[in-house]
Amino acid sequence: MSFAVSGVNSAVATPVDAELNPDIGLLAAHCRWLLETGCDGLAILGTTGEANSFSVAERQAILEGVLKAGIAPTQLLPGTGCAAGPDTVALTQHALANGVQRVVMLPPFYYKNPTDEGLFAAYARVIEAVGDDRLRVLLYHIPQMSAVPLSYELIGRLIEAFPGIVVGIKDSSGDRDNLLGMVKAFPGFSVIAGPDPLFLDLLRAGGAGCITGASNLIPDVLRTIYDSWQTDPARAEAAQGKAIAWRNLTMTHAQMPTIKALIGARTGETGWRRVRPPLVALDEGQAVEISAKAASLRAQ
Amino acid sequence: MSFAVSGVNSAVATPVDAELNPDIGLLAAHCRWLLETGCDGLAILGTTGEANSFSVAERQAILEGVLKAGIAPTQLLPGTGCAAGPDTVALTQHALANGVQRVVMLPPFYYKNPTDEGLFAAYARVIEAVGDDRLRVLLYHIPQMSAVPLSYELIGRLIEAFPGIVVGIKDSSGDRDNLLGMVKAFPGFSVIAGPDPLFLDLLRAGGAGCITGASNLIPDVLRTIYDSWQTDPARAEAAQGKAIAWRNLTMTHAQMPTIKALIGARTGETGWRRVRPPLVALDEGQAVEISAKAASLRAQ
Repeated sequence: MSFAVSGVNSAVATPVDAELNPDIGLLAAHCRWLLETGCDGLAILGTTGEANSFSVAERQAILEGVLKAGIAPTQLLPGTGCAAGPDTVALTQHALANGVQRVVMLPPFYYKNPTDEGLFAAYARVIEAVGDDRLRVLLYHIPQMSAVPLSYELIGRLIEAFPGIVVGIKDSSGDRDNLLGMVKAFPGFSVIAGPDPLFLDLLRAGGAGCITGASNLIPDVLRTIYDSWQTDPARAEAAQGKAIAWRNLTMTHAQMPTIKALIGARTGETGWRRVRPPLVALDEGQAVEISAKAASLRAQ
Repeated sequence: MSFAVSGVNSAVATPVDAELNPDIGLLAAHCRWLLETGCDGLAILGTTGEANSFSVAERQAILEGVLKAGIAPTQLLPGTGCAAGPDTVALTQHALANGVQRVVMLPPFYYKNPTDEGLFAAYARVIEAVGDDRLRVLLYHIPQMSAVPLSYELIGRLIEAFPGIVVGIKDSSGDRDNLLGMVKAFPGFSVIAGPDPLFLDLLRAGGAGCITGASNLIPDVLRTIYDSWQTDPARAEAAQGKAIAWRNLTMTHAQMPTIKALIGARTGETGWRRVRPPLVALDEGQAVEISAKAASLRAQ
């Protein structure tokens, strides 16, 4: 059995310049480093990538920029889910037009407490409007951010209605039971861990892979988990412990700005610290403190 | 003292055709009826108007369509706040370019638990990017939907930084203390009630007006409250009781689809029942039931 989405994938952060416009040069360099250092795929324009702080045109330019920089379409899993259905359709069609088949799709996230019927209709309408059998959709369950959870019943209904198109889900809820339960509930479905700490548990349960925030910093460590969990359990466990320590480090301050500051520390590009509001960049003191902690973690 | 926004304003619902595209003809007719029947202003493209289910281009077309149908720019208060800052800037500039000065602005609503510093930066960046002194911003506090509340501290800071531009707030939280407290905290600020049941209380406390959902159905009743609360308190109270009964009727099923079904019942245009997903239209039985209840309320 092969999963449509699997392995180590990064929830790639999006660097911005002094005017807070996307910095494609820095982004492309980061994407290359991620692939060289252990990632199978790059989930650009997700929550960590501040996707919903960029317009449709900016998101399309970011995807095109990464492709022009030489990243292969098959290595990309861009986020395309917006509050407005037509925006989701436009971004998904644009991805496909550029050879990118796999997308991560948030549900419409403005209206709260939607029914399963309403969410099914929203996803179905997008998939039908896109009308392209090459499409591979990874659903996106991140209730702490979208405030729109996806139920098992909805997921099952979507798999049934769109076999071969609705191929998996990224679960960023942090709810271990919800994550592992989907592996049993939906055989062959690509169940993907959002939180770094649950990666090994998910693989042992038969899950497909991860798309995590800490992968921006330690793709090698996550690679080790994925490559050794069957052959060298002790090694995988040690790596999982390391991934947890790094993930905890990213939570010292607000997570996305902390991840960006840590990429800045690694690359020496302090521009990486910038974020679009409503996120707030770490200040100099916080960035220095976090950088020292990262150095100490790396030395262990 | 005169408020920048005051009186009876409607959170106008947006009719859609069989393809779920905006039906400008029905919308323009509804807008005219609302103005003829008691509204001072039309807050199109708010939460009730399903704004965040429409793309930027669709929202611009809706505003232009309403203007072309003869509604005056001074009568409009379109919602322009999106998850992505550039979209908010584009919609706000478009409104101003069309002579519409007053907009209702949601905070960026994807990232949850933003800091006041981050929200201030988000609003400031939009206002500065728009760069037009004619702009009049009504902030929008609707935490049950945006999941991004606006604190008094943030509001105070925005008023201080942008005097004459940040002129008011629509509070749809339903929290009476929060609503009435703002009248005292921010003298001269246009404090606007979102929930119909709080309109009279707000006026008595010195508030400016309302932008409500039930106004799509009973602008005349809300007009009576506004026109008589000082001169004929008993009449105002009776009207407020009626407004509460209508508001409760709109909550029989999901509120937005119920409001649309009730507009459909009044106009005989059953197309009004349609909604964009993730909302779900009332079924025939529900629409008939709600229509009968409305007839009975109207007869009282």
